[in-house]
Order: sequence, then structure tokens, then C-alpha cells
Amino acid sequence: MSESAAHTDHAGLGILPFETCLEKLASVPVGRVGFLAAGEVEILPVNHVLDGQSVVFRTGIGSKLTGAGIGYPITFEADAHDTDGRYGWSVVVHGHAEVIDDEAEILRLTRMAPGGWSGGDRPYWIRIRPFSVTGRRVPGSD
Amino acid sequence: MSESAAHTDHAGLGILPFETCLEKLASVPVGRVGFLAAGEVEILPVNHVLDGQSVVFRTGIGSKLTGAGIGYPITFEADAHDTDGRYGWSVVVHGHAEVIDDEAEILRLTRMAPGGWSGGDRPYWIRIRPFSVTGRRVPGSD
Repeated sequence: MSESAAHTDHAGLGILPFETCLEKLASVPVGRVGFLAAGEVEILPVNHVLDGQSVVFRTGIGSKLTGAGIGYPITFEADAHDTDGRYGWSVVVHGHAEVIDDEAEILRLTRMAPGGWSGGDRPYWIRIRPFSVTGRRVPGSD
Repeated sequence: MSESAAHTDHAGLGILPFETCLEKLASVPVGRVGFLAAGEVEILPVNHVLDGQSVVFRTGIGSKLTGAGIGYPITFEADAHDTDGRYGWSVVVHGHAEVIDDEAEILRLTRMAPGGWSGGDRPYWIRIRPFSVTGRRVPGSD
């Protein structure tokens, strides 16, 4: 099973295989981007989709992200847990953010992900090209 | 109602009053800390509790956080959303992380939060003393 996590890290968490990380990223509608803005770490929730091995999401003009994140390293995290927070998994992507400006590509992505976490106008599609994808799960979680 | 959000930001999201931010932080068992480690933004899920106006959580020896986060600015984020990710809220705390070393304090906190997101040994209690707490919600969300 892809859920198996034979190895554990120093904290006793199961290490998820790469393919399982991608499955987990695709299984939830909301993740969070983390990036530096004015010297501080910002964390913003976004609606995302998994497109191949990259995470794609929309954002708006004037967001902290468009001012700070494009062309720089960016971090994306998604997780899930039960109601008391004892079981769960987390996947973290480190990568570079780039603006998607190809019209056909934008049309394809819009069909994949018509909704959005926020209201307002969010015309920019951002792709995170990963250079690392890592995942952990609490032992006993599925 | 504390849920009211009369003001919106540039993205059309409702801005949550401070007291509502604290209520939201206290309403979920898991949040995420964001911090710089080796020049990269890391995001790690943690089980947290709200203690007054500060966020408190446990971590272990050897975590990236204990190596990088203590004494430096740290960011904490919690959110909730519905299953398709269209509605939800997010609260972000910027603050400083400090290790709690008072035994009575640790005992009190352990009683407040006996569980944990991860297995393994996590002997350190960390308090984030906030210098800003901000929250947003999607219009129509409660």
C-alpha cells in the first residue's frame, strides 16, 4: 500500500513516500503558502490543485505574495487531522513560485479548479515548481 | 456578534476583530508554525492551545524548530474551511517563541493539552508571545 511508512523521523513520525505525498496534496482543497515578506514569515491559506508534480493556486493583485513570493523560494504545506488533532499527516513542498501566463494553460487550470478559498479578484495563477516534497504522518493514521 | 466582520481587505476577505481571532485560535486543535531554518521557510503542524493571548505548543529535541525558532520571530497560522474549500477563516499570529521552563507552568499546560499531533517525545513547551494577531474570513462564512 502506498500508505505504508516504514521509516520514522526523530520525532517518531512516519515518513511518507513521494507518491503518497502527491496523493495527499491532491486529496485536500486548501493548503498554505509560506514566504518571506518584509523580513517576516507569512502564512496564507490558498485553494490549490496538484498539476503533475507541482502545486498550483490563484492569487490577487496586491497580495503580499505577489509582492514578495514570485521568483523566490516558497513553501507550501497541506495537512489533515482528526477532530482532537491526535492523528494526521502533513506534506511540505519547497520550491520556486512562478506566474503562469499562458492562456491555454490558465483555461485548463480554471477548469480543474473553478472555486476559491477567498472572494475577490484573483487573476494570477501561480505554480510552485518543487525542489523537495516531504511528508510525515502520525503512526496509526491513514 | 463577535463573528461580524464589517471591514474587508483588498481581496474582499472580511477582517476579523481581535477577540474573534482569539476565539478562532482556541476553536481548533491544530495550527502551523512558520519560521526560517537554513534560509528556508519551514511550516510544521503543531497541536496548540490558547493560553490568554499567547499560543502554546510542545515540540521535541532535535526538531528544526528548537534549532531555529527560539528567540527569533515566529509565525503561527490556524484555519478552518469546508470540504470544497470555498468558505473558511484564517488567523495569523506573529510573535516571538520562548521556551517555558517553569515546572508549575508546564504542569498547568499539560493538563490543558494532554494530547499531541505527533508521537515521539516532545518535552519542550513553547510559548509564542504575539506582537500581531490578524484574521480573515471568506464572506458568508461563520
